[in-house]
Amino acid sequence: MTAFQTLDALRDACLTMPAPDEAGAEAVWQRQDMLTKPPRSLGRLEEIVAWLARWQHLPRPRLDKVKVLVFAGSHGVTARGVSAYPAEVTAQMVANFAAGGAAINQLARAAGAELSVVPLHVEQPTADIAEAPAMSEAEFLEAVEAGYSAVHESTDLLCIGEMGIGNTTVAAALCAGLFGGEPGGWTGRGTGVDDAGLDRKTAAVAAALQRHRSALADPLAVAMCLGGREQAAMLGAALAARHRHVPLLLDGFVATAALAPLAKLAPDGLAHAMAGHVSAEAAHRRLLDELGLPPLLDLGMRLGEGSGACLAVNIVRSALACFDGMATFGDAGVSQG
Amino acid sequence: MTAFQTLDALRDACLTMPAPDEAGAEAVWQRQDMLTKPPRSLGRLEEIVAWLARWQHLPRPRLDKVKVLVFAGSHGVTARGVSAYPAEVTAQMVANFAAGGAAINQLARAAGAELSVVPLHVEQPTADIAEAPAMSEAEFLEAVEAGYSAVHESTDLLCIGEMGIGNTTVAAALCAGLFGGEPGGWTGRGTGVDDAGLDRKTAAVAAALQRHRSALADPLAVAMCLGGREQAAMLGAALAARHRHVPLLLDGFVATAALAPLAKLAPDGLAHAMAGHVSAEAAHRRLLDELGLPPLLDLGMRLGEGSGACLAVNIVRSALACFDGMATFGDAGVSQG
Repeated sequence: MTAFQTLDALRDACLTMPAPDEAGAEAVWQRQDMLTKPPRSLGRLEEIVAWLARWQHLPRPRLDKVKVLVFAGSHGVTARGVSAYPAEVTAQMVANFAAGGAAINQLARAAGAELSVVPLHVEQPTADIAEAPAMSEAEFLEAVEAGYSAVHESTDLLCIGEMGIGNTTVAAALCAGLFGGEPGGWTGRGTGVDDAGLDRKTAAVAAALQRHRSALADPLAVAMCLGGREQAAMLGAALAARHRHVPLLLDGFVATAALAPLAKLAPDGLAHAMAGHVSAEAAHRRLLDELGLPPLLDLGMRLGEGSGACLAVNIVRSALACFDGMATFGDAGVSQG
Repeated sequence: MTAFQTLDALRDACLTMPAPDEAGAEAVWQRQDMLTKPPRSLGRLEEIVAWLARWQHLPRPRLDKVKVLVFAGSHGVTARGVSAYPAEVTAQMVANFAAGGAAINQLARAAGAELSVVPLHVEQPTADIAEAPAMSEAEFLEAVEAGYSAVHESTDLLCIGEMGIGNTTVAAALCAGLFGGEPGGWTGRGTGVDDAGLDRKTAAVAAALQRHRSALADPLAVAMCLGGREQAAMLGAALAARHRHVPLLLDGFVATAALAPLAKLAPDGLAHAMAGHVSAEAAHRRLLDELGLPPLLDLGMRLGEGSGACLAVNIVRSALACFDGMATFGDAGVSQG
């Protein structure tokens, strides 16, 4: 039995998300202004702690359990030659995650985060978005549910990442569908496609937009027609995070694009998310600007897998360490300005 | 007995710094291109590992011992009302460091770094730079030596930070002395000085430049006349790091300004340094641009204490974790593009 048996049930869940705990955030600011440092001199570290309080609904936030969820899926649009890598790499990388050999395995361990990988029928690609809806309604809701049910309320901070050859094409289609603009303004080199491949990618996005033009007014229809299973699962996970009081760190272009329908459905739909980084895929910065989400890190990364979000966990941990461990002016006998 | 008995002996040490280990860096790049990710898709994380190899002189870099050195000193120029905080805060914060209550204590623990604080005659301020050289030659060389001898060759990565009420004024004077430009282009609000205080600060820098105009051609004379003890010690520590094969993470405006004389003495004088972050003090970005050092982090911090450098240690650790732990395409059975 799935929690979302219809698109309307899913839409209801998207439109009834919990509000922030502003009192908790205010308590954080009051404490921070008493700590032995010039007021606000820790910059975004102070904003991070207030954000944790606001969305954990706790005046003293915690990071006992940090989770990285990586969703993997396969895309029919890869048949159009849009990627530098063959489609079988998705399944090969899922095996690499299981064996502990990928970047995200190392980054999760370094950040003290628990990694889970959720493959979504990797052996069964979605339909080619240039020709048909990526998923049927049942397939879409099943994938959303897989993401939703992967998030537990015991988690203190969640990173959402993905693996799916061809999915920067899908992300570009989602963005063009949701925000408009020329397809070429949303496509980029992804894992490193050449000039001819980039042309095929942009053409595929243009064809997909034309094919699904009647669906573009509804953000959930955009996700179903132009997205993919791992994108739908990421949307479900982000929705669950909000309902279960789990703050969310966004990864790169693909992960952010997958969650963008939540922001189109409700103005504060991604208010519980912070952008972990901005990737080297140029459209990511444009998308973060559209969403009003300034990134924590800008290190030229373009890997996916949740890598940028997970790297930002270290920053979040340091922010909370300052909040928890610093002395106040009074306790330390330090004069205030 | 001091290692640098004269300015000329110090100058010699600055002009005979070890060259990089380019073979070690090349070995790092060769391995990185075999790991299970699109080539160079970890962006600056890959540059970081090559940089560690280049300056540790090791093809497999290590981070077993990461050190944060915080130097503290007092400044006669504080009598001119250039800071939002009274001068006694420097000594109070040294006590706070010892008690474990400052931001840097928490950040060092979170980054797995060992913190040492080196107070430099905190009870005895330097001369007011607007009226006289900050230090005599003997005082300057003693402070440089204190920094130099604080760095041990067993350290794998060094963060250099500072505490000293009034020292953004000193940093502005150093930058204006070394790089030119209007004093007001290098001064800022520091810990949060008001408009009148900022005017006094800029006037103090202008007076100091006028007073020491005959010294400006020699970067070491600039450090002696316009600097302070913790600035001189930081310069000594950075010089020792180069000679002892210890890569260096720079902190904010004050720490970077203190090391800038090394870059003026020799074009590659700070090649072993990476900028840990760019601070909210606007002159820091200008200074990093002058030095050609792009920052790793940009989080609106303006605290000093080595806080930005220490936060960047987490990024460096994650970079090395990927390098050390990832599988190669061959080992993992993943197809290459």
